[in-house]
Formats: sequence, C-alpha cells, structure tokens
Amino acid sequence: MNLQTRSQHACFGGRMGFYAHAAQATGTEMRFAVYEPPQASARKLPALYYLAGLTCNEETFVIKAGAQRLAADMGLVLVACDTSPRGLNLPGDADAWDFGVGAGFYLDATAQPWAGHYRMSRYLNEELPALVEANFPVRSDRRGIFGHSMGGHGALVNALRNPQRWHSVSAFAPIANPVAVPWGEKAFSNYLGSDRQQWEAWDASLLMRARPYPGLMLVDQGLSDQFIDNQLHPQALQAAADASGQKLELRLHEGYDHSYWFIQSFIADHLRHHAAILGS
Amino acid sequence: MNLQTRSQHACFGGRMGFYAHAAQATGTEMRFAVYEPPQASARKLPALYYLAGLTCNEETFVIKAGAQRLAADMGLVLVACDTSPRGLNLPGDADAWDFGVGAGFYLDATAQPWAGHYRMSRYLNEELPALVEANFPVRSDRRGIFGHSMGGHGALVNALRNPQRWHSVSAFAPIANPVAVPWGEKAFSNYLGSDRQQWEAWDASLLMRARPYPGLMLVDQGLSDQFIDNQLHPQALQAAADASGQKLELRLHEGYDHSYWFIQSFIADHLRHHAAILGS
Repeated sequence: MNLQTRSQHACFGGRMGFYAHAAQATGTEMRFAVYEPPQASARKLPALYYLAGLTCNEETFVIKAGAQRLAADMGLVLVACDTSPRGLNLPGDADAWDFGVGAGFYLDATAQPWAGHYRMSRYLNEELPALVEANFPVRSDRRGIFGHSMGGHGALVNALRNPQRWHSVSAFAPIANPVAVPWGEKAFSNYLGSDRQQWEAWDASLLMRARPYPGLMLVDQGLSDQFIDNQLHPQALQAAADASGQKLELRLHEGYDHSYWFIQSFIADHLRHHAAILGS
Repeated sequence: MNLQTRSQHACFGGRMGFYAHAAQATGTEMRFAVYEPPQASARKLPALYYLAGLTCNEETFVIKAGAQRLAADMGLVLVACDTSPRGLNLPGDADAWDFGVGAGFYLDATAQPWAGHYRMSRYLNEELPALVEANFPVRSDRRGIFGHSMGGHGALVNALRNPQRWHSVSAFAPIANPVAVPWGEKAFSNYLGSDRQQWEAWDASLLMRARPYPGLMLVDQGLSDQFIDNQLHPQALQAAADASGQKLELRLHEGYDHSYWFIQSFIADHLRHHAAILGS
C-alpha cells in the first residue's frame, strides 16, 4: 500500500501528521490526518476515528477540536479522514455544499454516477483501518469511531452496521434520522436512488430499532443548534433507543450551537468515553 | 464607542465572540475576538491579549491554539486582534504575504502612504483596551500580552515600550531582532523609512538592552522552526537579556516547528505564566 506523507509536526510530545494515498474504494487520492501521542513511541495504542461534517475535510477536527492535548494525556491515536472523494468532477458534484464533494455521507452509493466512487463506508471500514494499522502503531482490536453532524450520522451508522469493527462510538449533533430530513433525503435519493427502503440501511435511528449497538452510545447535542429541528432530530434517536433497549446517553446542552466551539467544550468527555472502553 | 457583534458562541461554559468596530487609529473597521470564561459572569477578570503572525487574523489564535479550555479553568479573558488594517487598497499593500495587509508589525508607521493607517501600536495600546474594558468584564489594571512570530515581536516590543500598560508578557518564536533580518528590514524600511535609527525603537533586543522589562519574560522557540536562523534570532534576545539583566526564560524545544502545533503544545505554560502574575 502506498502512503504519502504530506507533513508532520511535533505536537504535545507526539506527532501530528497529514497523509495521502491512492484509495481503491473511491478511485481517487484520499487524504487523512493522524495524531500519534507520545505513548505511541513505546507501544501500539487504540485508534479513534473522527468523521467530520458537511463542507469539512481531514484538517477540520485536528485544527479546531483541541483534542490532541487530551489524546496525549490518554494515550489515544486520533485518525481523521476526508468527507468525500475529491477531484472526480462528476456532474453536479460541486453544485451544492450539502451534496457531492465534501458531503459523502459515509455510505456506499449504489446509483450512478456515484456508485463507482462514493464508497466512503467501504473506505472507512476496510481500506483506511488496514492502511493505518499497517503504517502506524495502533491496535487492530481496539477501534473507536465518532463524528459531528453528517459525521455523527456516519459514526453511528457505521458502528451499528459493523459493531465488530468499532468497539466504541459517540457523536456530536448527529443527523440522527436522515431519511426524515432534507439533508438526508437529498443525499440518499442521489446516492442510493428513489427506493426509500434502501435508505433505511443508512439511518441510525432505524438501524438501532432493528439491532442496537452492543455498548453505550454517547451523544451530545446543543439546544441552540440551528439545525436541530430541521436536520438533526435527536428525539428520533432517543425514541429508537427507548424502543430497542439501546444504551444511549443523549446529553442536551443549553446555549450550545452546531460549531466546533460546542465540540471542543465536550471533546474531553468523548475521549474519556472511548478511552474507558478501548483502554490506552 | 461603537461595537458590532458579528457572532457569539457558547464555549466551555463561557462565551466566544467575534466583534468589529470603526477604529480611529487605523481609519478602518477592525475586527477582534474575545473569549469570556465562565467566571466572567460573576466578576471582572484579567485580560490576556494575543498578537498573531504574518498572514493571520483575529480568528487564527482562537481557532488553532486550544486556549479556551485553559482560560476557562484559569479565569482569564482572551482578546485576539487582527494583524493589520484591511480594505484600504494602499499601493503595494497586497503584493506580498510579509508586508502590508496581514503584516502590520504592531508598530506606528511614520512613512507614507502607511502613516495615516498602519498605527497598530496605538490601536493595541490605547484604542482596543479602552473598547474592551468598556464593553467586557475585564480589569483595566491587569493586562497581559503575548503573541507568535510577528506577533511575538509585537508583544515583546509593545511591553518593553509600555510596561505600565502590560503587566505580563510572553512570546512564541518571536522575530526577536527585526532590524537584522529580512522580514524586519522590509517592514521597517517601508513603514518607518530609510533612517535605520528609527527602527531601533521597534526592535525587542535593542529595546531590552536600553531598558529591560520589569518582570519575567517567557519565550518558547522550536529548534526545528524553519525561520529560526534567517528571521527569528532568539540568540539576540538572550544576548540582550544577558547584557541588560532582563529576566528571561527562553526555552528551546527540540523537534518543534513554527506552527500552531507548536503553540498549542506549550500554550498552557504561557497561560499559567500570565495567570500567576495577573491573578484571575
């Protein structure tokens, strides 16, 4: 497997790095970021994968969330991937900020022209961990996943679909019931086609009702989030947990919005949640 | 005094805000950012001003340094200003990344066409603190200043010139002897004219030799900083401190570069340095 190092920087006694590789799942170059805490020089550590939201890329989380200080304390490797393939110039892939480039929704598209390239779920579940585990000091038996907004959806859905691959999961302000909101309807109708039954396989609330995740889910949501009513629907997740017996800690925070100011305020609780399950 | 709120966000139980006002010192709109920790709802707190480096603006520090978590713990208000006036379209002000827009060097220009507008020192020492102290819960008798690169130069120089205004000071990778390096020569010859004697009033190492700052200076410098030999010259600052009796803690860090990955790694020590002097 090829791996191109774009840059590396000393950070909290460890290493912040930016990488690229030719990805089979997407047929494009994909970029990702890895923070290796100081403990990584001595032994293999658990890896925690972060999925960013609409318009973001592999840099967003590592620049804005203030997570490295905590990961260095806790002995967690952080991995952040991009939000979609880039550079394909498929028709319509750059017309909107909530679809196409920067908006891959962490699923595997089945409709044309997206099916051959927008396979972010395959990328995230198989190709990226294989690459990371072959090239960085991380354990393959201890993986966590979390994310924000579209990336919160991605974290919940991929953990629910592949609980054997993701040993811990959490989310900030996830799109919790995408089949019922405009962002999800737009993405799913294009990526998956018009048969709404196909969409259910990528909806956290619906997946959870059918088969809960075998562990505690931590979800934080700001009550001043401008997208809470139209796009996020945390109450659907709570209802699904109530119906299915899913262990869910859904925390609603007065005054917090959808931004990384919100994420950084609660990132420590998320890293502790993952570290408690994954070890360090 | 006018004050326009551009946005505010809950952050670590306090408030991250972005503001603009019509500045007299520059004759332009100036933008700045203020982080108010939770303690600010109960009492006035010390304010710590941050000056960013070349190409940066009032957002850079508050997004990249991870300081809010610590400021919320310590009870410090953080203030970040812009690096120059903007929108003037003076001849040549946008031709280079190291001069003009984004590169005001925190001095008061005396040469045309800059003299009427590039008065960042007056802005920083007088107008901005007056505005902040009139509109935010901060003490006017407890101000700290710090910065990075060009902003490290700005922090050291303005503290040395106005020790009664700045009760604590520190810097990351400052341009420590600007009269002797290309960035400084370019800026000073344009902003201050060809008389090199005028430049000495804006050079931290030369100012310190004439009149040390009445307190400990903390300076961090990475030894893998790509600018250390050509532009920063920390050894000039150490020599000036040795000659003048300045109390200087200059820490050299193996492996660290010029980036905010470096800054965030040591930001806690800087906030603790300021909090120890300023109280909280």
